[in-house]
Amino acid sequence: MNEKLTASSNPLIKRIKTLSGARGRRDAGAFLVEGEVMIREALSCALTPRWALSEEECALTDDLRALGADVRLCTRGVLEAACDTKTPQGVCAVFSLPAAAALSGDAPLLLALDGVQDPGNLGTILRTADAAGFCGALLSPLCADVYAPKVQRAAMGSTFRVPTQRCALPEALASLKTRGCRIIVSALDGLNLYARPVCAPNDRLVLVIGSEAHGVSGEVMRLADVKVKIPMRGRAESLNAAVAAGILMYELTRPR
Amino acid sequence: MNEKLTASSNPLIKRIKTLSGARGRRDAGAFLVEGEVMIREALSCALTPRWALSEEECALTDDLRALGADVRLCTRGVLEAACDTKTPQGVCAVFSLPAAAALSGDAPLLLALDGVQDPGNLGTILRTADAAGFCGALLSPLCADVYAPKVQRAAMGSTFRVPTQRCALPEALASLKTRGCRIIVSALDGLNLYARPVCAPNDRLVLVIGSEAHGVSGEVMRLADVKVKIPMRGRAESLNAAVAAGILMYELTRPR
Repeated sequence: MNEKLTASSNPLIKRIKTLSGARGRRDAGAFLVEGEVMIREALSCALTPRWALSEEECALTDDLRALGADVRLCTRGVLEAACDTKTPQGVCAVFSLPAAAALSGDAPLLLALDGVQDPGNLGTILRTADAAGFCGALLSPLCADVYAPKVQRAAMGSTFRVPTQRCALPEALASLKTRGCRIIVSALDGLNLYARPVCAPNDRLVLVIGSEAHGVSGEVMRLADVKVKIPMRGRAESLNAAVAAGILMYELTRPR
Repeated sequence: MNEKLTASSNPLIKRIKTLSGARGRRDAGAFLVEGEVMIREALSCALTPRWALSEEECALTDDLRALGADVRLCTRGVLEAACDTKTPQGVCAVFSLPAAAALSGDAPLLLALDGVQDPGNLGTILRTADAAGFCGALLSPLCADVYAPKVQRAAMGSTFRVPTQRCALPEALASLKTRGCRIIVSALDGLNLYARPVCAPNDRLVLVIGSEAHGVSGEVMRLADVKVKIPMRGRAESLNAAVAAGILMYELTRPR
């Protein structure tokens, strides 16, 4: 049993705060997970805990220690200083960043996100990809960072389960295309989603979703095998990016 | 041309600030719309502007005056004090709350929201309802307020176009049911969405979406003609409420 940390200027807190930005996470090779539920999700996905802060000893702190994490008890104030949420739950833990996925063309269903910058949208899309049975997501360099706190909150653990790979999309998609994947792009000038050419049951698909503001970039658009558009029947001009991605993922995997 | 307002303690600003809460909006019978795009949307839906604050004279301020609004010029500081967004656009306007809709059983497609409390989710769902061609939404008393700034930002103008009615859902749905509407409820113990009984082309449908935390209430669930569940193929336990609503709205209106 160690002494409770009380000073929020403690160097440990400063180390945690450096993880609030993408660069700090990359430099440290680590990211912060807040709350028991999310920490349990990370452990169930075999992620490696390095250290943790907790208001009290509990089964979770025992489990974290058993996995080699340095667990410190701390006051509420320290936890509030360390966490991104305003009213954090009683525990947070720093995990090693998982190795980047290498998504191959053998996966039957991939997602490619071309500049999805809103963290809530990115997290929600990864959560839906998990639910819809997609095998992974390619992310262009302009996408929000997968390990940002807001992305994690929206993803509800799916960032731990859906492999992601940051890469230059035009090159990655061109390579997938030569290996027989069909590139389906969501585009305002696309075919009505429900009148598109039907894919064969064994087709390997890559669904491309563009940025909230600018859609899919020209370079990526040129690689499209099929462009589709969700019909707008009322007077709304467009859908939220995460909602559109959800409708498309479930429609493309719909049993016939 | 009137003098520019400069003091953010100006009584007009205080009046606008009272519109930041649901009660203030109800008492005043008015709500605030921020930014030129959204104000134009409100005008195109024939909403009545009462007064406005603008950093400068422009075509929009002329149009607002022509419709009888009291338009005052103001400094950036006044606008920041009045608006909900941190970096407001150069104009905001107070509109009269539209009369509550009376949604009838003749509408072919209605939405019923049973305690959707997150303003972003509510706004996003109304935006999708607009796009998918739904005729209106019944909202239980626990739902977020349609005219809250965050709801409006997520709805992108669809709050002006999709009629909404706050009401006790069990009574409203029971009445719609006796008039021949089929009540489709999203539920964790529902039938696989893609294996549900097919609706006849002329069926009038009410799609019920539950709260983020607790789903659909028991009283409403008992009125379901069909319960459906979006299949979870991966390890995610559930979908974001707005994404689930989007998938269901488009699936139920899918051409066959």
